[in-house]
Amino acid sequence: MRVGVLTGGGDCPGLNAVIRAVVRKGIEVHGWEFTGFRNGWQGPLTGESKPLGLRDVEDILTRGGTILRSSRTNPYMVEGGVEKIKAVLAEQEIDALIAIGGEDTLGVAKRLTDDGVGVVGVPKTIDNDLSATDYTFGFDTAVSIATEAIDRLHTTAESHHRALVVEVMGRHAGWIALHSGLAGGASVILVPERHFSVDQVVEWVERRFENEYAPIIVVAEGALPEGGEEKLVAGDKDAFGHVRLGGIGTWLADEIAHRTGKESRAVVLGHVQRGGTPTAYDRVLATRFGLHAVDAVADGDFGVMVALKGTDIVRVKLSEATAELKTVPLERYEEAEVFFG
Amino acid sequence: MRVGVLTGGGDCPGLNAVIRAVVRKGIEVHGWEFTGFRNGWQGPLTGESKPLGLRDVEDILTRGGTILRSSRTNPYMVEGGVEKIKAVLAEQEIDALIAIGGEDTLGVAKRLTDDGVGVVGVPKTIDNDLSATDYTFGFDTAVSIATEAIDRLHTTAESHHRALVVEVMGRHAGWIALHSGLAGGASVILVPERHFSVDQVVEWVERRFENEYAPIIVVAEGALPEGGEEKLVAGDKDAFGHVRLGGIGTWLADEIAHRTGKESRAVVLGHVQRGGTPTAYDRVLATRFGLHAVDAVADGDFGVMVALKGTDIVRVKLSEATAELKTVPLERYEEAEVFFG
Amino acid sequence: MRVGVLTGGGDCPGLNAVIRAVVRKGIEVHGWEFTGFRNGWQGPLTGESKPLGLRDVEDILTRGGTILRSSRTNPYMVEGGVEKIKAVLAEQEIDALIAIGGEDTLGVAKRLTDDGVGVVGVPKTIDNDLSATDYTFGFDTAVSIATEAIDRLHTTAESHHRALVVEVMGRHAGWIALHSGLAGGASVILVPERHFSVDQVVEWVERRFENEYAPIIVVAEGALPEGGEEKLVAGDKDAFGHVRLGGIGTWLADEIAHRTGKESRAVVLGHVQRGGTPTAYDRVLATRFGLHAVDAVADGDFGVMVALKGTDIVRVKLSEATAELKTVPLERYEEAEVFFG
Amino acid sequence: MRVGVLTGGGDCPGLNAVIRAVVRKGIEVHGWEFTGFRNGWQGPLTGESKPLGLRDVEDILTRGGTILRSSRTNPYMVEGGVEKIKAVLAEQEIDALIAIGGEDTLGVAKRLTDDGVGVVGVPKTIDNDLSATDYTFGFDTAVSIATEAIDRLHTTAESHHRALVVEVMGRHAGWIALHSGLAGGASVILVPERHFSVDQVVEWVERRFENEYAPIIVVAEGALPEGGEEKLVAGDKDAFGHVRLGGIGTWLADEIAHRTGKESRAVVLGHVQRGGTPTAYDRVLATRFGLHAVDAVADGDFGVMVALKGTDIVRVKLSEATAELKTVPLERYEEAEVFFG
Repeated sequence: MRVGVLTGGGDCPGLNAVIRAVVRKGIEVHGWEFTGFRNGWQGPLTGESKPLGLRDVEDILTRGGTILRSSRTNPYMVEGGVEKIKAVLAEQEIDALIAIGGEDTLGVAKRLTDDGVGVVGVPKTIDNDLSATDYTFGFDTAVSIATEAIDRLHTTAESHHRALVVEVMGRHAGWIALHSGLAGGASVILVPERHFSVDQVVEWVERRFENEYAPIIVVAEGALPEGGEEKLVAGDKDAFGHVRLGGIGTWLADEIAHRTGKESRAVVLGHVQRGGTPTAYDRVLATRFGLHAVDAVADGDFGVMVALKGTDIVRVKLSEATAELKTVPLERYEEAEVFFG
Repeated sequence: MRVGVLTGGGDCPGLNAVIRAVVRKGIEVHGWEFTGFRNGWQGPLTGESKPLGLRDVEDILTRGGTILRSSRTNPYMVEGGVEKIKAVLAEQEIDALIAIGGEDTLGVAKRLTDDGVGVVGVPKTIDNDLSATDYTFGFDTAVSIATEAIDRLHTTAESHHRALVVEVMGRHAGWIALHSGLAGGASVILVPERHFSVDQVVEWVERRFENEYAPIIVVAEGALPEGGEEKLVAGDKDAFGHVRLGGIGTWLADEIAHRTGKESRAVVLGHVQRGGTPTAYDRVLATRFGLHAVDAVADGDFGVMVALKGTDIVRVKLSEATAELKTVPLERYEEAEVFFG
Repeated sequence: MRVGVLTGGGDCPGLNAVIRAVVRKGIEVHGWEFTGFRNGWQGPLTGESKPLGLRDVEDILTRGGTILRSSRTNPYMVEGGVEKIKAVLAEQEIDALIAIGGEDTLGVAKRLTDDGVGVVGVPKTIDNDLSATDYTFGFDTAVSIATEAIDRLHTTAESHHRALVVEVMGRHAGWIALHSGLAGGASVILVPERHFSVDQVVEWVERRFENEYAPIIVVAEGALPEGGEEKLVAGDKDAFGHVRLGGIGTWLADEIAHRTGKESRAVVLGHVQRGGTPTAYDRVLATRFGLHAVDAVADGDFGVMVALKGTDIVRVKLSEATAELKTVPLERYEEAEVFFG
Repeated sequence: MRVGVLTGGGDCPGLNAVIRAVVRKGIEVHGWEFTGFRNGWQGPLTGESKPLGLRDVEDILTRGGTILRSSRTNPYMVEGGVEKIKAVLAEQEIDALIAIGGEDTLGVAKRLTDDGVGVVGVPKTIDNDLSATDYTFGFDTAVSIATEAIDRLHTTAESHHRALVVEVMGRHAGWIALHSGLAGGASVILVPERHFSVDQVVEWVERRFENEYAPIIVVAEGALPEGGEEKLVAGDKDAFGHVRLGGIGTWLADEIAHRTGKESRAVVLGHVQRGGTPTAYDRVLATRFGLHAVDAVADGDFGVMVALKGTDIVRVKLSEATAELKTVPLERYEEAEVFFG
């Protein structure tokens, strides 16, 4: 049996750990052969691939990124895409695919299964916004990195009576902001799920200064002030076609400085959050996902994705897996408010 | 309302995060007053305590250990212990207790509730061996520290063609060994749940050397060779009353050296695994445990402990909570064997 | 004997380690008493101070920031400032001062010594731009933090064929950029000491992409393109009085994206670089500085600052210490160019 | 021109950074070709080698260990060793060698130069015991790892009123113990340079407990009690030919427990200290050593080694370089005593 593997969408610490577990178990337990397709769904479209043996995955467990590279190519947006994929799989004698990716990658996996290609999915979302799994790998690493940064900012904020705004990832879901804000002891946490009042933020900030501490404000990149009609995400193109230089973090730091008269600075962690070696938690989860994806292939159980439920790895229909975005429930957010100010 | 807080048993990163969340929510939301009892159950026995206000918990989120100190005192082993506790609580006008600890501490909490004292438990076990909760805080930190050490050992092992044995915590349950071994890419993982064959270990070690890599063997301190009649735990007293200097890790490194003729060394991480700042994961879990323990007290729901189920914090009867040890299931262990050798 | 201690200027990991060493040696060896002045030179001006005993410095070695807080107050800009200081010192019976700070703080220390106050200086500059000492504490920590970020960015850059620009501290001297760029394996390093050609940067970036790697460009916040007439430092006020949201890093990422057609993003580490626990290197250096500052006071050797020369701590006249800025010599910069592209 | 590179002796974080810098500068600036000899001096003896190009050194900067592997082979102990080396060099058309290693490796380099082979040395000693250079790479990494461990041990020691003994590397020189002990805030530091009195250690330990803190004792593996006639180094063979399971650390923890009646435990960091990614400091130093070694080869300046003097990289005659061991001067040790107890 020959199995193809690919990684799609944004990169995420733990992708290589999945690939390693898949190849190791497939070869050691089942005697399969593996093909690594390059650049997400572009690989099976164009045939760009390489064999994956035990040596290829020997040293990759601890490495961030993906040895297979990634892309956002969607074969259903390509004329004759599905036929091309079937032709490539036939030519390379591939019996099944393991597709590691987020909502888009898994959406393609679902449609391909419907179209007769055997695919098993492995979920990946650094933002923790897939509803069918408790967590995915990459999220814990991102939260850890953001928390380390917040830890460092406390002492410098206090030594200088400064407000510091930390912008973290999360365009649609505030999980990274919520968890890193809780873990880092933030004075304010702002998430996309609830528009925030700048007046309220200023009140928390001033209360914090009154207590002789310095406020750290953690803000998800997709968070918006009440009445804000336009997302202020750095890196987006603005009306003039220029990449936006500062996002909500720098905007908010400026507002706080103007309204409180205190020095206020923004830190934008950006891609640091998604790179580098995964945490132990993410390596274990990614490894278990990989092992169970091989089980699903061995069972011929296609059209499913592996998922974490409590401490178990289970299988979920791909059709359910990508149905809705998992955002922060308001009660989880409100629970955190006890630490604000 | 006045609530007492105490921490019992071995220390664990995250204890202070629980204390902070409890005090913060109790004061900010309910307007309660808090008393911190010192040294576990010894505090309510002797009355040794201090008030806990917002200032006391301001800076403790990131700190390991416990600001309340700990002990293994069991009031049910003390003549008239329960009466003494009731007298202290009456005198200090304490309406309820929040007890943070492991099996022993929670066992006392259960019996005290039966004896008419209102106690809510917060589970703590760095070894992850409490069956009533998916995880507790401290475990993720211990696994992370062990994994970092294993990461470092790979390169030095390979540069010198050496076998390295890493002894990690786990007298009765192999969770830390299993997770850190998986996360660190160990060549062999040995746990207390299954006696190991030294011959088999040697075979894996030699296979690893043949592939021009160097083996890392992760062994839980409570793991035993087949036929081993005596636990080889460092720090235990031996037959002569001396503290045992080397445990299973050093013993195994010696065996491997003798049988393979290769250089072999042991690293015993010891207390490094349970100290220092908690990981972001453990801080969030500990914080959520603390917030929900306050909810239970507010509901007058005593004799329960908070627990993690999936992504939710739930309440579990203390009587069920400490019923059995959660060891590594054999299928979880066997799943990992695909990476051995 | 009673000695006053203060910290001035921007904060820097290691300040607390100096304070601890000073107090510990002064008390244990000489039996002195210590007064901590708050907020830099503002403390001796207003008399705001507190006694510093062994307990006060017990837990501070590993903490970033400064327990004495800091400010940029210059008593020579205050009407009657010197007289006020002398009055405060007389009233509090202070025999000598240990002033920990950068160019400005040490400049005041020098003038006060000339005006008859006994001051010993301890140099502090996170930017490594003081010419009279080989290194100061804080620099190693800043370089380490920037290097960790660069390490993380490599894998994400490569997985997505992206250019990543990392803006690090250094308005006038490029030491942090040079060292973190060398340590992190940057493809381009840009420093204030040499205006850069955007064409040349683009050439290096494109060469890197051709070799199937992804470029990381490390840029000091004070670096300027050739012909750049205005510093592009984030946080400065622009012509409209608004705090500038993006600095040279975001500007350069935008330029690279426009010119190469490749995705390009900026990471601005900001205050993360100066906060949190110092590296072991910085703790040892800060501790040794503190011990030797006490020796200078004991010798009555005022008007000097302690400095690192090779592996020795020596004393340097304050008049020489602040004479010139230590920038990156061109030959050190050119030596690094072998790694560009 | 063709240049051979080799690494000898114990491994050390930064070896790969040297190799990368050498190859990169040699190729980019001089157009040389490189041969990597495997396993230290064994490579030039047997001819085991491989070409080293830019691709081979692309990803190695951050990796511990050495891609060339290492050994302790001494060609002057091998019959006809020098002639064999000359024959291999002639056959492979090698014009010069860059040898990276410690006292032994550099001793061979010196003799080979005398025997007509052009060798430039790069010093490597994790223990910091080479007298001809201020520091070498690897030492800062080892100190950092030991310091992190000590940081973690403080909270667990205090929560349980326990003494913790940390055994660090250093058979003949106590530099790692001194620096990590200072950086970690140890209560006692013990080094090979001065035999210690167990009574004195116990006194410091008890004083620490009296102040309600818990003592951390940092001990170099080669430290000895007064009257101790035999080194207690773990891993050495004892009189029965068995590898010694516990060294001075476990011995001392046992002594302290017996004499004070307090719980006392040892942590033996072992090989964790020499593995894994180098600190930023070590990467910069290793890189600069590599660049300057190439300069020496380009100048035909053989029989020298590169060395750090202050902030400069200089050249030192190999004959002077290995003349004497650099141990901790007593005044440096006594300076630290102010922190004991």
